[in-house]
Amino acid sequence: MVVELISVGTELLLGNIVNTNARYLSEKCAMLGLSVYYQTTVGDNRERMAGVIKTALDRADMIILNGGLGPTEDDITKEVCAEVMGARLVEDPTVKAHLEEWYKLRMKSELPESNWGQALVPEGAVIFENHNGTAPGLAVEKDGKIAILLPGPPGEMYPMFEEQVCPYIQGKQSGIIRSQMIKICGFGESKVEEMLLDLIDSQTNPTIATYAKTKEVHIRVTARAETDEEAKKILKPVVKEIKKRFGNAVYTTDENETLEDVVVRLLTKYDLTVTTAESCTGGLLAGRLVNVPGASEVFRQGFITYSNKAKRKQLDVSKTTLRKYGAVSEQTAKEMATGGVFATDADICIAVTGVAGPDGGTPEKPVGLVYIACYMKDSVQVEEYHFNGNREKVREQTVVQALDLLRRSVLSHYKKD
Amino acid sequence: MVVELISVGTELLLGNIVNTNARYLSEKCAMLGLSVYYQTTVGDNRERMAGVIKTALDRADMIILNGGLGPTEDDITKEVCAEVMGARLVEDPTVKAHLEEWYKLRMKSELPESNWGQALVPEGAVIFENHNGTAPGLAVEKDGKIAILLPGPPGEMYPMFEEQVCPYIQGKQSGIIRSQMIKICGFGESKVEEMLLDLIDSQTNPTIATYAKTKEVHIRVTARAETDEEAKKILKPVVKEIKKRFGNAVYTTDENETLEDVVVRLLTKYDLTVTTAESCTGGLLAGRLVNVPGASEVFRQGFITYSNKAKRKQLDVSKTTLRKYGAVSEQTAKEMATGGVFATDADICIAVTGVAGPDGGTPEKPVGLVYIACYMKDSVQVEEYHFNGNREKVREQTVVQALDLLRRSVLSHYKKD
Repeated sequence: MVVELISVGTELLLGNIVNTNARYLSEKCAMLGLSVYYQTTVGDNRERMAGVIKTALDRADMIILNGGLGPTEDDITKEVCAEVMGARLVEDPTVKAHLEEWYKLRMKSELPESNWGQALVPEGAVIFENHNGTAPGLAVEKDGKIAILLPGPPGEMYPMFEEQVCPYIQGKQSGIIRSQMIKICGFGESKVEEMLLDLIDSQTNPTIATYAKTKEVHIRVTARAETDEEAKKILKPVVKEIKKRFGNAVYTTDENETLEDVVVRLLTKYDLTVTTAESCTGGLLAGRLVNVPGASEVFRQGFITYSNKAKRKQLDVSKTTLRKYGAVSEQTAKEMATGGVFATDADICIAVTGVAGPDGGTPEKPVGLVYIACYMKDSVQVEEYHFNGNREKVREQTVVQALDLLRRSVLSHYKKD
Repeated sequence: MVVELISVGTELLLGNIVNTNARYLSEKCAMLGLSVYYQTTVGDNRERMAGVIKTALDRADMIILNGGLGPTEDDITKEVCAEVMGARLVEDPTVKAHLEEWYKLRMKSELPESNWGQALVPEGAVIFENHNGTAPGLAVEKDGKIAILLPGPPGEMYPMFEEQVCPYIQGKQSGIIRSQMIKICGFGESKVEEMLLDLIDSQTNPTIATYAKTKEVHIRVTARAETDEEAKKILKPVVKEIKKRFGNAVYTTDENETLEDVVVRLLTKYDLTVTTAESCTGGLLAGRLVNVPGASEVFRQGFITYSNKAKRKQLDVSKTTLRKYGAVSEQTAKEMATGGVFATDADICIAVTGVAGPDGGTPEKPVGLVYIACYMKDSVQVEEYHFNGNREKVREQTVVQALDLLRRSVLSHYKKD
């Protein structure tokens, strides 16, 4: 099935905001086995919007419009789409009741007259309830084509899509699409593709798609089948084979789990606490860890030791080490990690020191050189990295590799036991 | 002049990456006084790309294509665009020389045969040199329409646009467009708009546009005139009036300066050093500071004290304070800031404690309650905030307000002197 995405919003055309919704919807469409050939952004202009909708309905089976469903005069998506499709707008009592309740509960007020329009829906439309706002989502079916209208705010659109729109679209397809995510850390995208070349080359069902993230690759395996059971059967051997090829580098197969989630989950599981000792990342590693709700159980404090003096004072790195090997060295990283554990009551310390640039690089220690050390159970492991890119990129990559070293350290210690 | 943006890339249609280039180009077009009515994304498919280019050339004066200029077989933007516009591709000796030199210098190799195609340009095209990659930018003029082709990687496209494409576009317009940025911290977008209502309502030339960022609003004032001198004259009184209305909340009028840049610049100017004491932001504040190249001169170390024990041990927050007022309190924030200065040799400490959520909120101390304290020159100032949004949003807003409190503290101290 061919799908076309239309984003509505003058703020997108002015460059006020990035169109993250288009990325989200494109990925979801790929997951559902749908082909997206065009994404279009258009403003709150009747004529231009109608033109875009007509063109899209001509060349696709399904169009997904996003934005312009609010209560203001500028919000014309529903009206224009209904007009193009020749559907009359009628008041929907369920939507109206939801609106009234929403205003009573959240806004402590009566539904303002200007918002009544939100209760109008194209006759015969499928309604997707909005649990996080006022505008419902809608699916209008006409002449073998489908238009799906979704609210713009991601906080409203994402849950609506996952809970209601996905099953709706799946119901429109013959058979089942099922996909499985495999997230890998520590391999570049081209290396991953090389290692999967035989599988990718021979792929028809399931298909394998790779998504490159900073120092991570996400692999999505997607199967089509008549039943969910059959789809699972098609996925299983391929997923198993991929997991075998990447071994420990696979950090999760859960679509919604991040690398820091996994780290916090492992630390919690083994009842461990961690501290951080950061130089070039200046707090970003700790910042990633405390992204995870409940991180306070495993992470209680961290050190940002940018200067040599701070490394000496807070982490007890020896003056001799700093003088002899320099702040960016295997030895300093090791002493930082060791010092972090001794300065706190944490079980593990992950330490980072490197040259993030743009200045500070030398021929021996160029920009991008980073040492990451992990102290755990009386032993300290250190890894040397050479990252490409600007200051920000070097720091981003360092944080990911540090989280991964922490993950691998915990895993290897507990496998031994 | 009406401009249409076309992004080329299958990775966009699959949702692998967010289309940040479209946002960038849209903002730049707005700055140049150009109207963007449509943005389209299309894949590496000849027929569909040709269709999109034709449609765009029909309805706009100028189209800007972005992506698909690389050396691989998938990169067909130049070929397709030239075909649609009826322009022959010819080898350009300057581009070829640049390619050969690039390979010799950067890749330490001869130009591979597969890359020769990058030296082909539509006959008569204006060439924008690529100082950060191989594919040049191009402008093809035909029948009163202009097609601009730009490489996809932001690191190549952004500098090319600023240095070469902007002047080229300005040369195509009658008169001059000049804009001035004013960046404000601490006011919401609706408040800013309210305070500018009379100016916005009466605007014709210059125009005023507001861009909401996290806890920041960027105001762009744009003037059209015959000469640059005249445009400056039109801008001046409006910019002055806006600066007057927002006073100290204006942190810069430099397009490219960030809040953390300003903070580091001020600290450097007054020869001050700062340390950070973070609870709920867990290192993100320090991480933002060290974004700035050269931050090591003013920021040498920081503390992440998530647990009460760490607050006591590292920052000497008293047990009584923690027991009596709790970790999230004005008193604790003050003691954290004071302790940070005494534990280091920094002149200033900025301290943060709050409830980032999703758990940990109580009726008295709900999620979003944050205290930010700044210790400087024997006095400590503390501010209470109530932020909306999820964990990530609360932390983001906290970081911005902390940077701004730091900025205002330095300013107010040095105004007194």
